[in-house]
Amino acid sequence: MGKDNKVSLTVIRRLPKYHRYLSDLMDKGISRISSQELSVLTGFTASQIRQDLNNFGGFGQQGYGYNVEDLQRELGKILGLDQRYNAVIVGAGNLGQAIANYRGFEDAGFKVLAMFDRNPRVIGLKIRDIEIKDMEHIEDFIKKNNVEIGIITTPKDSAQEVADIYVKAGVKGVWNFAPADINVPEDMILENVRLNESLFILSYFLKAATK
Amino acid sequence: MGKDNKVSLTVIRRLPKYHRYLSDLMDKGISRISSQELSVLTGFTASQIRQDLNNFGGFGQQGYGYNVEDLQRELGKILGLDQRYNAVIVGAGNLGQAIANYRGFEDAGFKVLAMFDRNPRVIGLKIRDIEIKDMEHIEDFIKKNNVEIGIITTPKDSAQEVADIYVKAGVKGVWNFAPADINVPEDMILENVRLNESLFILSYFLKAATK
Repeated sequence: MGKDNKVSLTVIRRLPKYHRYLSDLMDKGISRISSQELSVLTGFTASQIRQDLNNFGGFGQQGYGYNVEDLQRELGKILGLDQRYNAVIVGAGNLGQAIANYRGFEDAGFKVLAMFDRNPRVIGLKIRDIEIKDMEHIEDFIKKNNVEIGIITTPKDSAQEVADIYVKAGVKGVWNFAPADINVPEDMILENVRLNESLFILSYFLKAATK
Repeated sequence: MGKDNKVSLTVIRRLPKYHRYLSDLMDKGISRISSQELSVLTGFTASQIRQDLNNFGGFGQQGYGYNVEDLQRELGKILGLDQRYNAVIVGAGNLGQAIANYRGFEDAGFKVLAMFDRNPRVIGLKIRDIEIKDMEHIEDFIKKNNVEIGIITTPKDSAQEVADIYVKAGVKGVWNFAPADINVPEDMILENVRLNESLFILSYFLKAATK
Protein backbone atom coordinates (compact mmCIF):
# COMPACT_ATOMS: atom_id res chain seq x y z
CA MET A 1 0.00 0.00 0.00
CA GLY A 2 1.66 3.21 -1.17
CA LYS A 3 5.37 3.86 -1.18
CA ASP A 4 5.75 5.42 2.23
CA ASN A 5 6.18 2.33 4.35
CA LYS A 6 8.39 3.74 7.07
CA VAL A 7 5.52 4.58 9.38
CA SER A 8 3.50 1.60 10.58
CA LEU A 9 -0.07 1.13 9.45
CA THR A 10 -1.18 1.12 13.09
CA VAL A 11 0.20 4.64 13.56
CA ILE A 12 -1.28 5.84 10.27
CA ARG A 13 -4.68 4.49 11.27
CA ARG A 14 -4.58 6.67 14.38
CA LEU A 15 -3.92 9.90 12.44
CA PRO A 16 -7.53 10.47 11.33
CA LYS A 17 -8.54 10.18 14.99
CA TYR A 18 -6.04 12.85 16.06
CA HIS A 19 -7.25 15.00 13.19
CA ARG A 20 -10.89 14.62 14.28
CA TYR A 21 -10.14 15.47 17.92
CA LEU A 22 -8.12 18.51 16.90
CA SER A 23 -10.92 19.71 14.61
CA ASP A 24 -13.35 19.37 17.52
CA LEU A 25 -10.99 21.36 19.76
CA MET A 26 -10.78 24.08 17.11
CA ASP A 27 -14.59 24.20 16.97
CA LYS A 28 -14.55 24.76 20.72
CA GLY A 29 -12.01 27.60 20.38
CA ILE A 30 -9.21 25.73 22.15
CA SER A 31 -5.85 26.77 20.73
CA ARG A 32 -3.33 24.78 22.72
CA ILE A 33 -3.22 21.26 24.14
CA SER A 34 -0.71 19.04 25.92
CA SER A 35 -0.11 15.39 25.11
CA GLN A 36 -1.56 14.61 28.57
CA GLU A 37 -4.79 16.39 27.69
CA LEU A 38 -4.87 14.70 24.28
CA SER A 39 -4.42 11.41 26.11
CA VAL A 40 -7.56 11.98 28.17
CA LEU A 41 -9.50 12.82 25.01
CA THR A 42 -8.26 10.03 22.77
CA GLY A 43 -7.62 7.25 25.24
CA PHE A 44 -4.08 6.78 23.88
CA THR A 45 -1.21 7.28 26.34
CA ALA A 46 0.62 10.63 26.27
CA SER A 47 3.86 8.90 25.36
CA GLN A 48 2.22 7.05 22.47
CA ILE A 49 0.79 10.32 21.19
CA ARG A 50 4.21 11.98 21.31
CA GLN A 51 5.78 8.99 19.55
CA ASP A 52 3.06 8.87 16.90
CA LEU A 53 3.40 12.55 16.07
CA ASN A 54 7.20 12.45 16.18
CA ASN A 55 7.06 10.13 13.17
CA PHE A 56 6.02 13.11 11.11
CA GLY A 57 8.22 15.81 12.64
CA GLY A 58 8.40 17.55 15.99
CA PHE A 59 5.09 19.33 16.29
CA GLY A 60 5.04 19.87 20.04
CA GLN A 61 7.13 22.10 22.26
CA GLN A 62 8.17 21.03 25.73
CA GLY A 63 6.27 22.96 28.38
CA TYR A 64 3.86 24.35 25.81
CA GLY A 65 2.28 21.34 24.18
CA TYR A 66 0.74 21.49 20.74
CA ASN A 67 -0.76 24.39 18.87
CA VAL A 68 -4.14 22.92 17.95
CA GLU A 69 -4.61 24.76 14.67
CA ASP A 70 -1.06 24.13 13.42
CA LEU A 71 -1.18 20.46 14.32
CA GLN A 72 -4.62 19.98 12.76
CA ARG A 73 -3.44 21.65 9.53
CA GLU A 74 -0.21 19.64 9.40
CA LEU A 75 -2.01 16.36 10.05
CA GLY A 76 -4.50 17.35 7.36
CA LYS A 77 -1.62 17.76 4.91
CA ILE A 78 -0.12 14.41 5.91
CA LEU A 79 -3.53 12.83 5.39
CA GLY A 80 -3.74 14.44 1.95
CA LEU A 81 -6.79 16.50 2.87
CA ASP A 82 -5.25 19.51 1.14
CA GLN A 83 -5.46 17.61 -2.17
CA ARG A 84 -8.45 17.26 -4.50
CA TYR A 85 -9.30 13.79 -5.72
CA ASN A 86 -11.80 12.79 -8.37
CA ALA A 87 -13.84 9.70 -7.70
CA VAL A 88 -16.49 7.57 -9.37
CA ILE A 89 -18.88 5.08 -7.83
CA VAL A 90 -19.88 1.75 -9.35
CA GLY A 91 -23.14 0.48 -7.91
CA ALA A 92 -25.89 3.11 -7.85
CA GLY A 93 -27.99 1.37 -5.20
CA ASN A 94 -28.77 2.87 -1.83
CA LEU A 95 -25.29 2.72 -0.43
CA GLY A 96 -23.79 4.21 -3.60
CA GLN A 97 -26.35 6.99 -3.53
CA ALA A 98 -25.71 7.64 0.15
CA ILE A 99 -22.02 8.05 -0.55
CA ALA A 100 -22.66 10.25 -3.57
CA ASN A 101 -24.79 12.43 -1.31
CA TYR A 102 -22.50 12.57 1.67
CA ARG A 103 -21.16 16.08 2.17
CA GLY A 104 -18.34 15.04 4.48
CA PHE A 105 -16.45 13.47 1.60
CA GLU A 106 -16.52 16.60 -0.47
CA ASP A 107 -15.31 18.60 2.52
CA ALA A 108 -12.35 16.22 2.69
CA GLY A 109 -11.48 16.93 -0.94
CA PHE A 110 -13.20 14.01 -2.65
CA LYS A 111 -15.41 14.85 -5.59
CA VAL A 112 -17.69 12.16 -7.01
CA LEU A 113 -17.89 12.93 -10.74
CA ALA A 114 -20.25 10.15 -11.78
CA MET A 115 -21.91 6.92 -10.75
CA PHE A 116 -22.10 3.84 -12.94
CA ASP A 117 -24.55 0.99 -13.03
CA ARG A 118 -25.82 -1.74 -15.35
CA ASN A 119 -29.49 -1.34 -14.42
CA PRO A 120 -31.25 0.50 -17.30
CA ARG A 121 -33.89 1.71 -14.85
CA VAL A 122 -31.42 3.94 -13.00
CA ILE A 123 -29.11 4.97 -15.86
CA GLY A 124 -29.67 8.63 -16.64
CA LEU A 125 -30.98 9.52 -13.19
CA LYS A 126 -29.20 12.14 -11.12
CA ILE A 127 -28.28 12.13 -7.43
CA ARG A 128 -27.65 15.76 -6.53
CA ASP A 129 -25.72 16.76 -9.66
CA ILE A 130 -24.17 13.34 -10.10
CA GLU A 131 -25.41 11.39 -13.10
CA ILE A 132 -25.79 7.62 -13.12
CA LYS A 133 -24.13 6.45 -16.31
CA ASP A 134 -23.98 3.18 -18.22
CA MET A 135 -21.09 0.90 -17.20
CA GLU A 136 -20.21 0.69 -20.87
CA HIS A 137 -18.61 4.13 -20.72
CA ILE A 138 -16.67 3.82 -17.48
CA GLU A 139 -13.17 3.24 -18.79
CA ASP A 140 -13.34 6.19 -21.15
CA PHE A 141 -14.78 8.39 -18.44
CA ILE A 142 -12.05 7.54 -15.95
CA LYS A 143 -9.30 8.24 -18.45
CA LYS A 144 -10.79 11.50 -19.71
CA ASN A 145 -11.60 12.91 -16.27
CA ASN A 146 -8.48 12.08 -14.34
CA VAL A 147 -10.35 9.87 -11.87
CA GLU A 148 -8.07 8.72 -9.07
CA ILE A 149 -10.47 6.88 -6.77
CA GLY A 150 -12.86 4.10 -7.64
CA ILE A 151 -15.60 3.33 -5.13
CA ILE A 152 -17.29 -0.08 -5.14
CA THR A 153 -20.82 -0.32 -3.74
CA THR A 154 -22.00 -3.33 -5.72
CA PRO A 155 -23.11 -6.70 -4.33
CA LYS A 156 -20.16 -8.91 -3.49
CA ASP A 157 -20.36 -11.04 -6.62
CA SER A 158 -19.56 -8.07 -8.87
CA ALA A 159 -16.83 -6.55 -6.72
CA GLN A 160 -13.80 -8.24 -8.31
CA GLU A 161 -15.02 -7.51 -11.83
CA VAL A 162 -15.42 -3.83 -10.95
CA ALA A 163 -11.98 -3.78 -9.33
CA ASP A 164 -10.49 -5.22 -12.52
CA ILE A 165 -12.13 -2.46 -14.56
CA TYR A 166 -10.71 0.16 -12.19
CA VAL A 167 -7.24 -1.36 -12.49
CA LYS A 168 -7.44 -1.42 -16.27
CA ALA A 169 -8.70 2.16 -16.43
CA GLY A 170 -5.87 3.35 -14.20
CA VAL A 171 -7.42 4.59 -10.95
CA LYS A 172 -4.93 4.83 -8.09
CA GLY A 173 -7.06 3.81 -5.16
CA VAL A 174 -10.13 1.70 -4.52
CA TRP A 175 -12.61 2.22 -1.69
CA ASN A 176 -14.49 -1.05 -1.38
CA PHE A 177 -17.80 -1.41 0.43
CA ALA A 178 -18.70 -4.81 -1.01
CA PRO A 179 -18.36 -7.64 1.52
CA ALA A 180 -15.80 -9.40 -0.67
CA ASP A 181 -12.04 -9.71 -0.72
CA ILE A 182 -10.83 -8.22 -3.95
CA ASN A 183 -7.40 -8.58 -5.48
CA VAL A 184 -5.60 -5.58 -6.90
CA PRO A 185 -1.98 -5.07 -8.01
CA GLU A 186 0.51 -4.24 -5.26
CA ASP A 187 0.92 -0.61 -6.25
CA MET A 188 -2.82 0.01 -6.06
CA ILE A 189 -4.25 1.40 -2.84
CA LEU A 190 -7.16 -0.57 -1.42
CA GLU A 191 -9.26 0.45 1.56
CA ASN A 192 -12.13 -1.80 2.63
CA VAL A 193 -15.14 -0.74 4.68
CA ARG A 194 -16.62 -3.81 6.34
CA LEU A 195 -20.11 -2.85 7.45
CA ASN A 196 -21.10 -6.47 7.98
CA GLU A 197 -18.09 -7.15 10.16
CA SER A 198 -18.85 -4.13 12.30
CA LEU A 199 -22.43 -5.33 12.71
CA PHE A 200 -21.24 -8.84 13.59
CA ILE A 201 -19.07 -7.40 16.37
CA LEU A 202 -22.09 -5.60 17.78
CA SER A 203 -24.03 -8.83 17.53
CA TYR A 204 -21.25 -10.77 19.29
CA PHE A 205 -21.30 -8.46 22.29
CA LEU A 206 -25.09 -8.35 22.40
CA LYS A 207 -25.17 -12.12 22.58
CA ALA A 208 -22.35 -12.23 25.12
CA ALA A 209 -24.13 -9.64 27.28
CA THR A 210 -27.41 -11.54 27.35
CA LYS A 211 -25.98 -15.03 27.93
CA MET B 1 -18.16 -3.75 26.19
CA GLY B 2 -20.25 -6.78 27.10
CA LYS B 3 -19.54 -9.15 29.92
CA ASP B 4 -17.47 -11.74 28.10
CA ASN B 5 -14.04 -10.16 28.42
CA LYS B 6 -11.93 -13.29 28.48
CA VAL B 7 -11.26 -13.28 24.75
CA SER B 8 -9.34 -10.26 23.49
CA LEU B 9 -11.05 -7.72 21.28
CA THR B 10 -8.40 -8.32 18.61
CA VAL B 11 -9.40 -11.97 18.37
CA ILE B 12 -13.10 -11.13 18.38
CA ARG B 13 -12.59 -8.65 15.56
CA ARG B 14 -11.13 -11.44 13.42
CA LEU B 15 -14.16 -13.73 13.87
CA PRO B 16 -16.37 -12.00 11.27
CA LYS B 17 -13.54 -12.44 8.78
CA TYR B 18 -13.31 -16.19 9.43
CA HIS B 19 -17.06 -16.38 9.14
CA ARG B 20 -17.02 -14.58 5.79
CA TYR B 21 -14.27 -16.80 4.35
CA LEU B 22 -16.06 -19.93 5.52
CA SER B 23 -19.32 -18.74 3.97
CA ASP B 24 -17.47 -18.18 0.68
CA LEU B 25 -15.99 -21.69 0.88
CA MET B 26 -19.47 -23.11 1.46
CA ASP B 27 -20.73 -21.24 -1.61
CA LYS B 28 -17.96 -22.92 -3.57
CA GLY B 29 -18.95 -26.34 -2.25
CA ILE B 30 -15.76 -26.85 -0.23
CA SER B 31 -16.49 -28.95 2.86
CA ARG B 32 -13.13 -29.25 4.60
CA ILE B 33 -10.16 -26.94 5.11
CA SER B 34 -6.86 -27.01 7.01
CA SER B 35 -5.52 -24.12 9.07
CA GLN B 36 -2.73 -23.87 6.47
CA GLU B 37 -5.26 -23.36 3.69
CA LEU B 38 -7.20 -20.89 5.82
CA SER B 39 -3.92 -19.08 6.37
CA VAL B 40 -3.42 -18.60 2.62
CA LEU B 41 -6.97 -17.26 2.30
CA THR B 42 -7.02 -14.95 5.29
CA GLY B 43 -3.43 -13.81 5.53
CA PHE B 44 -3.30 -14.83 9.21
CA THR B 45 -0.75 -17.48 10.19
CA ALA B 46 -1.97 -21.05 10.64
CA SER B 47 -0.92 -21.01 14.28
CA GLN B 48 -2.79 -17.78 14.92
CA ILE B 49 -5.89 -19.26 13.33
CA ARG B 50 -5.66 -22.36 15.53
CA GLN B 51 -5.14 -20.20 18.63
CA ASP B 52 -8.03 -17.88 17.72
CA LEU B 53 -10.45 -20.74 17.20
CA ASN B 54 -9.25 -22.63 20.28
CA ASN B 55 -10.55 -19.73 22.37
CA PHE B 56 -14.03 -20.92 21.56
CA GLY B 57 -13.55 -24.67 21.74
CA GLY B 58 -11.66 -27.26 19.72
CA PHE B 59 -13.22 -27.08 16.29
CA GLY B 60 -10.44 -28.69 14.28
CA GLN B 61 -9.18 -32.23 14.18
CA GLN B 62 -5.52 -33.01 13.73
CA GLY B 63 -4.89 -34.47 10.27
CA TYR B 64 -8.37 -33.53 9.10
CA GLY B 65 -8.61 -29.79 9.56
CA TYR B 66 -11.93 -28.03 9.91
CA ASN B 67 -15.35 -29.01 8.66
CA VAL B 68 -16.30 -25.82 6.82
CA GLU B 69 -20.04 -26.00 7.43
CA ASP B 70 -19.74 -26.89 11.13
CA LEU B 71 -17.18 -24.20 11.78
CA GLN B 72 -19.18 -21.57 9.90
CA ARG B 73 -22.31 -22.45 11.87
CA GLU B 74 -20.49 -22.46 15.21
CA LEU B 75 -18.82 -19.10 14.49
CA GLY B 76 -22.21 -17.77 13.44
CA LYS B 77 -23.61 -18.77 16.82
CA ILE B 78 -20.66 -17.19 18.65
CA LEU B 79 -21.27 -14.02 16.65
CA GLY B 80 -24.93 -14.10 17.63
CA LEU B 81 -26.08 -14.49 14.03
CA ASP B 82 -28.58 -17.12 15.16
CA GLN B 83 -30.39 -14.44 17.20
CA ARG B 84 -32.96 -11.92 16.00
CA TYR B 85 -32.43 -8.29 17.02
CA ASN B 86 -34.81 -5.39 16.59
CA ALA B 87 -33.26 -2.08 15.58
CA VAL B 88 -34.31 1.48 14.90
CA ILE B 89 -32.46 4.20 13.01
CA VAL B 90 -32.30 7.86 13.99
CA GLY B 91 -31.42 10.07 11.04
CA ALA B 92 -33.48 9.33 7.92
CA GLY B 93 -31.03 10.93 5.49
CA ASN B 94 -29.27 9.04 2.74
CA LEU B 95 -27.07 6.95 4.97
CA GLY B 96 -29.96 6.03 7.23
CA GLN B 97 -32.04 5.06 4.22
CA ALA B 98 -29.18 3.04 2.76
CA ILE B 99 -28.92 1.07 5.98
CA ALA B 100 -32.68 0.61 6.21
CA ASN B 101 -32.54 -0.79 2.68
CA TYR B 102 -29.54 -3.05 3.08
CA ARG B 103 -30.55 -6.68 2.83
CA GLY B 104 -27.32 -8.00 4.32
CA PHE B 105 -28.33 -6.75 7.75
CA GLU B 106 -31.62 -8.57 7.70
CA ASP B 107 -29.86 -11.76 6.58
CA ALA B 108 -27.68 -11.40 9.67
CA GLY B 109 -30.75 -11.23 11.91
CA PHE B 110 -31.14 -7.48 12.29
CA LYS B 111 -34.59 -6.10 11.64
CA VAL B 112 -35.05 -2.34 11.33
CA LEU B 113 -38.52 -1.66 12.72
CA ALA B 114 -38.65 2.10 12.17
CA MET B 115 -36.63 5.19 11.35
CA PHE B 116 -36.91 8.45 13.25
CA ASP B 117 -36.24 12.01 12.20
CA ARG B 118 -37.11 15.59 13.14
CA ASN B 119 -37.62 16.81 9.59
CA PRO B 120 -41.38 17.14 8.97
CA ARG B 121 -40.77 16.70 5.24
CA VAL B 122 -39.68 13.09 5.65
CA ILE B 123 -41.86 12.02 8.58
CA GLY B 124 -44.52 9.63 7.33
CA LEU B 125 -42.54 8.45 4.31
CA LYS B 126 -41.67 4.80 3.93
CA ILE B 127 -38.38 3.16 2.91
CA ARG B 128 -39.31 -0.36 1.81
CA ASP B 129 -41.81 -1.12 4.59
CA ILE B 130 -40.00 0.97 7.16
CA GLU B 131 -41.81 4.12 8.22
CA ILE B 132 -40.03 7.34 9.11
CA LYS B 133 -41.56 8.48 12.39
CA ASP B 134 -41.42 11.63 14.47
CA MET B 135 -38.61 11.67 17.05
CA GLU B 136 -41.23 12.57 19.62
CA HIS B 137 -42.40 8.96 19.75
CA ILE B 138 -39.07 7.18 19.86
CA GLU B 139 -38.84 6.30 23.54
CA ASP B 140 -42.31 4.80 23.59
CA PHE B 141 -41.62 2.89 20.40
CA ILE B 142 -38.38 1.39 21.69
CA LYS B 143 -39.99 0.24 24.92
CA LYS B 144 -43.10 -1.22 23.26
CA ASN B 145 -41.24 -3.03 20.50
CA ASN B 146 -38.36 -4.57 22.39
CA VAL B 147 -35.75 -2.65 20.37
CA GLU B 148 -32.25 -3.78 21.26
CA ILE B 149 -30.12 -1.83 18.78
CA GLY B 150 -30.10 1.89 18.14
CA ILE B 151 -28.46 3.08 14.94
CA ILE B 152 -27.22 6.67 14.66
CA THR B 153 -26.96 8.19 11.19
CA THR B 154 -27.38 11.84 12.14
CA PRO B 155 -24.88 14.64 11.65
CA LYS B 156 -22.22 14.67 14.35
CA ASP B 157 -23.76 17.47 16.39
CA SER B 158 -26.87 15.42 17.16
CA ALA B 159 -25.10 12.13 17.87
CA GLN B 160 -24.70 12.46 21.65
CA GLU B 161 -28.27 13.63 22.12
CA VAL B 162 -29.53 10.60 20.19
CA ALA B 163 -27.26 8.29 22.19
CA ASP B 164 -28.70 9.72 25.41
CA ILE B 165 -32.22 8.99 24.16
CA TYR B 166 -31.21 5.43 23.34
CA VAL B 167 -29.71 4.97 26.80
CA LYS B 168 -32.81 6.35 28.48
CA ALA B 169 -35.10 4.17 26.38
CA GLY B 170 -33.09 1.08 27.24
CA VAL B 171 -31.52 -0.19 24.01
CA LYS B 172 -28.60 -2.57 24.61
CA GLY B 173 -26.30 -1.61 21.77
CA VAL B 174 -25.57 1.44 19.63
CA TRP B 175 -24.24 1.34 16.07
CA ASN B 176 -22.89 4.82 15.44
CA PHE B 177 -22.14 6.20 11.97
CA ALA B 178 -21.85 9.84 13.02
CA PRO B 179 -18.26 11.13 13.01
CA ALA B 180 -18.44 11.96 16.71
CA ASP B 181 -17.26 10.31 19.91
CA ILE B 182 -20.29 9.55 21.95
CA ASN B 183 -20.40 8.59 25.59
CA VAL B 184 -22.56 5.73 26.79
CA PRO B 185 -22.68 3.87 30.12
CA GLU B 186 -20.15 1.08 30.56
CA ASP B 187 -22.67 -1.73 30.22
CA MET B 188 -23.90 -0.42 26.88
CA ILE B 189 -22.38 -1.84 23.70
CA LEU B 190 -21.06 0.76 21.28
CA GLU B 191 -19.74 0.04 17.81
CA ASN B 192 -18.55 2.95 15.68
CA VAL B 193 -18.25 2.98 11.89
CA ARG B 194 -15.77 5.64 10.88
CA LEU B 195 -16.34 6.28 7.19
CA ASN B 196 -14.36 9.50 7.28
CA GLU B 197 -11.39 7.84 8.90
CA SER B 198 -11.38 5.12 6.28
CA LEU B 199 -11.46 7.74 3.56
CA PHE B 200 -8.61 9.67 5.21
CA ILE B 201 -6.48 6.52 5.18
CA LEU B 202 -7.10 6.15 1.47
CA SER B 203 -6.21 9.80 1.04
CA TYR B 204 -3.00 9.38 3.06
CA PHE B 205 -1.76 6.59 0.84
CA LEU B 206 -2.79 8.39 -2.34
CA LYS B 207 -0.76 11.39 -1.30
CA ALA B 208 2.16 9.24 -0.17
CA ALA B 209 2.11 7.37 -3.50
CA THR B 210 2.22 10.53 -5.59
CA LYS B 211 4.81 12.40 -3.56
